This record gives sequence, C-alpha cells and structure tokens, in this order.
Amino acid sequence: MPVAPQKFFFPTAEEAEAAFYEALELGDLELLMRVWANDEEAVCIHPGGERLVGIQAIRASWQEVLANGALPLRRLRVHTMQNAMSAVHAVVEQLSVNTGQARHIVHCYATNVFHSGPFGWRLVLHHASQAPDHSDVDMLHDIPDILH
Amino acid sequence: MPVAPQKFFFPTAEEAEAAFYEALELGDLELLMRVWANDEEAVCIHPGGERLVGIQAIRASWQEVLANGALPLRRLRVHTMQNAMSAVHAVVEQLSVNTGQARHIVHCYATNVFHSGPFGWRLVLHHASQAPDHSDVDMLHDIPDILH
Repeated sequence: MPVAPQKFFFPTAEEAEAAFYEALELGDLELLMRVWANDEEAVCIHPGGERLVGIQAIRASWQEVLANGALPLRRLRVHTMQNAMSAVHAVVEQLSVNTGQARHIVHCYATNVFHSGPFGWRLVLHHASQAPDHSDVDMLHDIPDILH
Repeated sequence: MPVAPQKFFFPTAEEAEAAFYEALELGDLELLMRVWANDEEAVCIHPGGERLVGIQAIRASWQEVLANGALPLRRLRVHTMQNAMSAVHAVVEQLSVNTGQARHIVHCYATNVFHSGPFGWRLVLHHASQAPDHSDVDMLHDIPDILH
C-alpha cells in the first residue's frame, strides 16, 4: 500500500526505512528523497560505486538508478541498534534478476543510519555493498556470536 | 604514540576511531577490541566478507586478520555526522600492498558508527567495502553536491 503524503513525517526509523524500500519498489524518486535528511552532509554508497556526499548528488544517483525501472529489494535479516536520537539498521537486500534464460538472486549488505530531528526520522547514510556470492538465501547466514 | 591504558575510556568518537586505526597499525587485538562496544548486537562487515554479528564473532575475525600482521590503514576524507549520542564516520581507508614487484594502493570505503554510553564512545558498527579501482588517491574524489 503506498505511503500517504501525511506520512512523510516518519515517527520511527522503521517507518522511514519501510518507505525507503517501498519507494524503490515503486520507482518513486520523490518519495525516496523524502526519506533522506535534506542535508549536504548525507552520504550514499551504492554497491561498487563512488561515495556520494550531499543530497543533490544522492538524488542524481537515485534518479539514474530508477531511470532503469523500479528496484524491488526484499529486506532480510534486519538487525537494528537504536538510541534516543539515532538508529542503525544492518540489512540484507535481496534482488531477483531475470536474464531471460535464468533468474539470479543477488544479495547486498546495506547499512542505513537514521537520525531523529524536528522533521522526524530521516536517513543520513546508506552504504550498500555486494554480499559474498550465494545461490540460496538460506546459505546467507550471519556468522553467529559463538557465545550466544 | 601508543594509546595509554587510561585512555580506554574514549571521551569522543574521534578518539575511539583514532584508537581503532592505531590498533590495526600496531596489530594490537586487545586495544582494537576495547574500541568495540561489548555488545552482542555489534555488526562488522569486512570487504567481501560475511556479515558478522556479536562481539565474539567480530573478535575472532580480527584475530584472523591480524594473524597475518599489522594492518596500517591511512584514513582519508573522514566525513562525520554526529548528534548527542551517536556519531557516524564515513572514511576512505588506504592500504599500500607490496607484492615484491610493485606497490599497489587499495582503497576501501568504511562506515564506522559509534554510540555514547556509560563507558564512553564505542564502535557498534564497522562496514567496509572496496572502493572503485583507482591507481591514485587524487582520483578518489567524492561526487560533490552540485549545489555546494
């Protein structure tokens, strides 16, 4: 279900992150950019790409990404650490790529950092990088803490 | 100059991060682990590696890394965003690799997230991934915000 305009104030980091991935799934650049903090300090690293600093450069990069169509990423194994003003989400992003002959599954690790401010929770950093190659998500285990 | 034991309380995220890279340069696992939050929620992603969750798994991975010797990483283009309880540092890490025949320079992008708590500032997340290939650090520009 699309995010209604009145929800552009994100009361939690989780809601901001849900809107981020929904915007990618819809190919909706405007919604995507409302999740980002309007901040020239914001940082975005796409898998294999240059580090982008500042909201204008980040917007331009997503515009380019979404020009190729929507980006439906399945979020797996979301791991969160939060305090009063900041939330860190470590996410496994799963993308299905159809090459005509076959369907490939690609996984990325993404770190999403949200800060809380007068305009609710906003994304200040997105760092994504390709995860080790696995044909099956069930193989994509975290290395567990050996004591827990 | 080595970090003195009394400095294991890190009063700022910057001091914690400096100790982190100093520990790598010294190959000092104990110092390195004092920078990390003693937290089973902590997350570490080495370049090309599996996501590690929990301080014991993280310790084991760094022990393995440092078994091959110290890891002198030069920190470049540190970009910080901070609020009262949390600091996000986006760092370019530069490593010189001597292969006998030649000296290669490798760059990684690292996201380091620090949280402030009763034991000072501690690292809760380190996500590193290889940057696009450049032979010269001067080529490693951020994509600047086009309005600034």
